[in-house]
Amino acid sequence: MPSAGAEAPRAGVPRTLEWEGGEDGTLFVLDQTRLPGTLAVVPLADLAAVHDAIRRLVVRGAPAIGVAAAYGVVVGVREAGPGSLEGVCRTLAAARPTAVNLGWAVERMRRAGAGLPAGASHKALVARLLEEARRVHAEDLAMCEAIGRHGAALLPEEGTVLTHCNAGALATSDHGTALAVVYAARRAGKRIAVYADETRPLLQGARLTAWECMQRGVPVTLICDGAVGTVLGQGRVDCVVVGADRIAANGDVANKVGTYTVSVLAREHRVPFYVAAPSSTFDLGCPDGDHIPIEERDPREVTHPLGQRAAPDGVRVYNPAFDVTPASHVTAIVTERGVLHRPDREGIRRHLA
Amino acid sequence: MPSAGAEAPRAGVPRTLEWEGGEDGTLFVLDQTRLPGTLAVVPLADLAAVHDAIRRLVVRGAPAIGVAAAYGVVVGVREAGPGSLEGVCRTLAAARPTAVNLGWAVERMRRAGAGLPAGASHKALVARLLEEARRVHAEDLAMCEAIGRHGAALLPEEGTVLTHCNAGALATSDHGTALAVVYAARRAGKRIAVYADETRPLLQGARLTAWECMQRGVPVTLICDGAVGTVLGQGRVDCVVVGADRIAANGDVANKVGTYTVSVLAREHRVPFYVAAPSSTFDLGCPDGDHIPIEERDPREVTHPLGQRAAPDGVRVYNPAFDVTPASHVTAIVTERGVLHRPDREGIRRHLA
Repeated sequence: MPSAGAEAPRAGVPRTLEWEGGEDGTLFVLDQTRLPGTLAVVPLADLAAVHDAIRRLVVRGAPAIGVAAAYGVVVGVREAGPGSLEGVCRTLAAARPTAVNLGWAVERMRRAGAGLPAGASHKALVARLLEEARRVHAEDLAMCEAIGRHGAALLPEEGTVLTHCNAGALATSDHGTALAVVYAARRAGKRIAVYADETRPLLQGARLTAWECMQRGVPVTLICDGAVGTVLGQGRVDCVVVGADRIAANGDVANKVGTYTVSVLAREHRVPFYVAAPSSTFDLGCPDGDHIPIEERDPREVTHPLGQRAAPDGVRVYNPAFDVTPASHVTAIVTERGVLHRPDREGIRRHLA
Repeated sequence: MPSAGAEAPRAGVPRTLEWEGGEDGTLFVLDQTRLPGTLAVVPLADLAAVHDAIRRLVVRGAPAIGVAAAYGVVVGVREAGPGSLEGVCRTLAAARPTAVNLGWAVERMRRAGAGLPAGASHKALVARLLEEARRVHAEDLAMCEAIGRHGAALLPEEGTVLTHCNAGALATSDHGTALAVVYAARRAGKRIAVYADETRPLLQGARLTAWECMQRGVPVTLICDGAVGTVLGQGRVDCVVVGADRIAANGDVANKVGTYTVSVLAREHRVPFYVAAPSSTFDLGCPDGDHIPIEERDPREVTHPLGQRAAPDGVRVYNPAFDVTPASHVTAIVTERGVLHRPDREGIRRHLA
């Protein structure tokens, strides 16, 4: 299945999110709820719009949520005027519970604002916040590139990567985390193809990963989530690469529901299981996976795929958005700092030092 | 989650399939492609209609396919006249490749017809075929009841069963195979609840198993396929019970795609994995799972859940309808003859002797 390694041109495809203009500028995001059918770039004009976009997964993926929230602080404080910084930060940080990058980016913005001299004007505050948000954004781009570079070395010259959900350019400012590894390997001439599982309930694998791979000329095959064991059992997969929403101090990884299932299957078939994520994904205040809050979402995501009723009215549903993969299932974690093999508490501390 | 054991009344719910009338009667089936939204009972008036209903999963589930095909031979031969028996049987046997009950039932019908004296009239042939189809039907009902009775003894007094796809009343003439075990346990006073995974691509878990359990008052919780590992990891499941489409001579089990994934997860968590199926599901001519033909179905089942586009146009898809679970993952196989623990070639031979 693998084919030649070059990336196809991507003229005309909008980025995940972009700030246009200066301090009176606008945050635009690509509405990911409408992909792949519609390429809609929407402005997020006020705090409520940013909060709603994060909540509804218009913008999703832990790193992208962090960048969007950083710009969201600019938008919110500019709108609400002097004295609003703390409240705006609290609102945005609460938009979703699991991704640590959200809290991390918002806290960084809060500190940047709070670091201004006491008498600074509201205009100066907004300018400082925009400067910091742009830095978060630029660092995210650089981190994704570095993750790709480090991770590419782990892939074979020719082979197939299975990924879950979307940890691609759409989940970050660009490039992605898990998919950054694939893209960088292909730029380096490796012949890498991708299996994307569809990732119910919200089908990010089918809607986003398949789309993004096709946009970039990466050979991609879509499978149902239940077929992950089937393709691993048939020896079709050389390694698994996924992203992460939060990594505890001991290396336990919270990621999209279904990731744990994939990790068990990878181990059963002795296929390496890699996690690619910026170092901001680590939450050293969280001792292990049992302490990561797991968001439960609307049952309708399960009962109504793409808004169409599948299940009987009133059926009981369990719909956790994430699950926790124990560190023991993780072959290596790839961050912008390099590759951490067999992650554990001590290795993680050294990696982040 | 478990609640009281009694079955709720099911007044007004049509059976999976029914023959109405005598030799000039009609085969009616409940159109399972329209559940749970619409309860539509449709007549299958000719051979093409029966073939199409099996092919499109209007009637599905290995045992139900067998019974439908048996009546289909009556319909087809009655329509096509003298000399048509062999051709009708060939057509029906080819409707789907994996379920062994289809070939088994059709072959039994062929033999019943071929066993008539050389000079028998066409009318006598149709009468003989209907008699045999009715016997196949009655035996299926009795087998499902026996499977339920034997399997119920394996379940705890109180607990939760996870099942995949639909091996329920809708997959058989009534009662089901995997779900017959649940229903019988509850009739015996055990407090059993069910986790149904939705079973993409065709969502039989969401559309059929959840519906069927609710109809019968069984507490059921619907989850996405990716959450199977999550609920097993959380200790929410006491055992797994699934059906089978074909069981090889060594105990390898072909069943709905995703079953292998569930089996690996059950083993990882030391949760018993039971297969419930009539003994006609064994194919002793098939040495092992590698020799079971696996049907690949239309990519649109994956790209268009419930007919709505999810994935980019032209994306490559791998859509096997079934996968093979090795005998080593199977704690026991429950048939109408009893419970076969740790199935292997020798045990299976004895079980069927």
